[in-house]
Amino acid sequence: MSQPTAAPQTFRAIDVIRKKRDGVELSRAEIEGLVNAYTNAEIPDYQVSAWLMAVLLKGMTRPETAALTDAMLHSGEVLDLSSLPARKVDKHSTGGVGDKTSLVLAPLAAAAGVVVPMISGRGLGHTGGTLDKLEAIPGFNVNLPVAEFRHVLEVCGCAMIGQTAEIAPADRKLYALRDVTGTVESPYLICASIMSKKLAEGIDALVLDVKTGSGAFMKSENDAAFLAELMVETGERMGKQVVALITDMDQPLGKMIGNALEVVECVEVLRGVGPEDLRELCLELAGWMLHLGGASKTVAEGKQQSAKLISSGKALEKFRQMVELQGGDPRIIDDARRLPQAQHTVQVASAKAGYVASMQCEQIGTACVILGGGRERKEDSVDPAVGIVLHKKVGDRVAAGESLATIHYNSQAKTARARELIEASCEIAETAPPKRPLIHRVIGSAS
Amino acid sequence: MSQPTAAPQTFRAIDVIRKKRDGVELSRAEIEGLVNAYTNAEIPDYQVSAWLMAVLLKGMTRPETAALTDAMLHSGEVLDLSSLPARKVDKHSTGGVGDKTSLVLAPLAAAAGVVVPMISGRGLGHTGGTLDKLEAIPGFNVNLPVAEFRHVLEVCGCAMIGQTAEIAPADRKLYALRDVTGTVESPYLICASIMSKKLAEGIDALVLDVKTGSGAFMKSENDAAFLAELMVETGERMGKQVVALITDMDQPLGKMIGNALEVVECVEVLRGVGPEDLRELCLELAGWMLHLGGASKTVAEGKQQSAKLISSGKALEKFRQMVELQGGDPRIIDDARRLPQAQHTVQVASAKAGYVASMQCEQIGTACVILGGGRERKEDSVDPAVGIVLHKKVGDRVAAGESLATIHYNSQAKTARARELIEASCEIAETAPPKRPLIHRVIGSAS
Repeated sequence: MSQPTAAPQTFRAIDVIRKKRDGVELSRAEIEGLVNAYTNAEIPDYQVSAWLMAVLLKGMTRPETAALTDAMLHSGEVLDLSSLPARKVDKHSTGGVGDKTSLVLAPLAAAAGVVVPMISGRGLGHTGGTLDKLEAIPGFNVNLPVAEFRHVLEVCGCAMIGQTAEIAPADRKLYALRDVTGTVESPYLICASIMSKKLAEGIDALVLDVKTGSGAFMKSENDAAFLAELMVETGERMGKQVVALITDMDQPLGKMIGNALEVVECVEVLRGVGPEDLRELCLELAGWMLHLGGASKTVAEGKQQSAKLISSGKALEKFRQMVELQGGDPRIIDDARRLPQAQHTVQVASAKAGYVASMQCEQIGTACVILGGGRERKEDSVDPAVGIVLHKKVGDRVAAGESLATIHYNSQAKTARARELIEASCEIAETAPPKRPLIHRVIGSAS
Repeated sequence: MSQPTAAPQTFRAIDVIRKKRDGVELSRAEIEGLVNAYTNAEIPDYQVSAWLMAVLLKGMTRPETAALTDAMLHSGEVLDLSSLPARKVDKHSTGGVGDKTSLVLAPLAAAAGVVVPMISGRGLGHTGGTLDKLEAIPGFNVNLPVAEFRHVLEVCGCAMIGQTAEIAPADRKLYALRDVTGTVESPYLICASIMSKKLAEGIDALVLDVKTGSGAFMKSENDAAFLAELMVETGERMGKQVVALITDMDQPLGKMIGNALEVVECVEVLRGVGPEDLRELCLELAGWMLHLGGASKTVAEGKQQSAKLISSGKALEKFRQMVELQGGDPRIIDDARRLPQAQHTVQVASAKAGYVASMQCEQIGTACVILGGGRERKEDSVDPAVGIVLHKKVGDRVAAGESLATIHYNSQAKTARARELIEASCEIAETAPPKRPLIHRVIGSAS
């Protein structure tokens, strides 16, 4: 007598919801079942949102987080860049104000022979987005089809585009649902969202810049470190080298905030000038990218090499090449006036003398959004010209009436509120505060 | 200068979800806003299911629970029975196996002059439902319009119907969503669901029979007591007298399980015979109903009065009157063969001699569902004739080969599995177990 055939194991969303609700670890098959069924519209939003809330409140184990990341990654296309012989390395930041390192790092690492297939996002909340910055360059096309993206990578070693419809469709669907169900803040869901998209780029290694402080999504260093460890371990479980730097976002990075202004500042850094903090962070992150990309033996050597690629002009030339290949006007590099310019400027003066003791960094980011430099609603368009140039940073001495910042604006109506926010965000005290380090911690055993 | 008019306070579901997620107490206005918006289809299922999961995992305060109950109660029609001069009292059970007291209690309390406007449900899971039992009586109509319901109450003092579309529509919508999102089990949501429907009957007082044990939804007495306290306090906050009896459901109540069989057993109790445990629980609950209904000074007096109404035949006459008024065939009372009869019976014999040490009560309920006496899926129809008659209960002595139970069945195919379940559910030991009390606890200060 033959054994009866087992009934096909049908996926039941309710069982997976109940298990997570009750704190029972989900299997890889259960997580894959849920993600695949949702991507294929076989289970309704209301079951997935209940599950997301259970995940937010009950957490996930490391194997669950890796399984979720993996399922989301494989919900769409995973780029195969194995035809490019060099190692592929990307950098991802959790977002901040004036956080513009991508535009420096992609050409810098590429100049060292590392391939950087960078797929970036737009501004979110009070933070800026790489795509919005790139689009401040006249003609720059961030919507390359995959074949063209690959071509730019082959010719130039780096390319910077936006997410395509083919990459991690599960993340797009889940993110939209999280946004309206109060389930954005879970570190497990944040980890899976970031890592699934980054690993879809077909990279070998990833450098994470996890921001902490008043301008970051993770205000506390503990929260930032928790997320960083989660992402590092998840990446490692998936066979990638991952390192995370916990870096300071208690004040804006560099001096310029706003899309075209940030392009200007990046070109300055690539020229070997620009503000010290931005330059230092770029070299640190580049050091790691070069090291993980096999272009240097150590991180320190990678930093030195990066500094040389800047002083020799090779990094800037790589940037010029990428801008040209992606349809942008390379003349903006030598003539910043070819970038969008705001019609008006106005100074924000300090009411009293003293030292800048602190900056409410999120408020400065919000001021830039109000000026039109970011989106208050998803459907808003962005004004690339507006922004804020800081003349003082935390620890700097300021005289009464001296300018703290210049606002670049096009709409008088919006400027008053932005100005108030900047004024309120700068605390002036009689003594300078202790200096916060730029790099708080490095997490990951990739070295 | 006049004050600017405040912008209309728009209800934002996301804010209410986030607050509950973060353990912040919701205001009455926020809870009302959510319930009303959902009832009016102004917010989507996926936001409500995320909120339900947050409630399940974070709990609710007593004021929140009362506000939720109140909002659900007022989502539809609240019966106004003030034209009936007597006090209106209902009884509600959280559900069990062989749990048939409603059919005894409604006519019994009505015979004492208390008005009993009883709106009941159908079988759920392994438990039976009052409506299914009533429908075993040929012709009995549980779908009376409100005007007719009121008429039966005026004439007879008791009436038993199913939920109407007008009563607590928010509960119907929320219950359907809870069922598919793993959020049924929250005591706060259970409390609001039960109490909103019961208070919509326009009652003055409510007797709750909260079951605990292997055949109850609340297996542990602590869980049962927690739910009971929640319901009592919620009812009292809404100005009603509420008492809850925690009663035993570690074995079936009475000896008969199955819709027509349970009608037979209820008629026996109303005749002054029937099994002792069922009779005792009916008198205890009736004592409370009479007391809260103003028909007796004390609960003990209410019990004595109830016993007299049975021995005098007045309670049975009230049942006969109600059956007739609701279109049922009253001849079933004197001739049980006029009720649906199963075609076959089979005995379940004990494999060994000893004492019945325990019964897995839920499995016995499930056996009855498998026979066709309950629904495995919502759309299933119920066979009123099938069921189980127990010949032994916990503590009874049994000889090897002696019958533990008789199965009444119509389908041979289903009977084997039901029989296995019943056999497996009865544990036979060498000694009798300690006797569990029928009434574990009384909660509520209504006395």
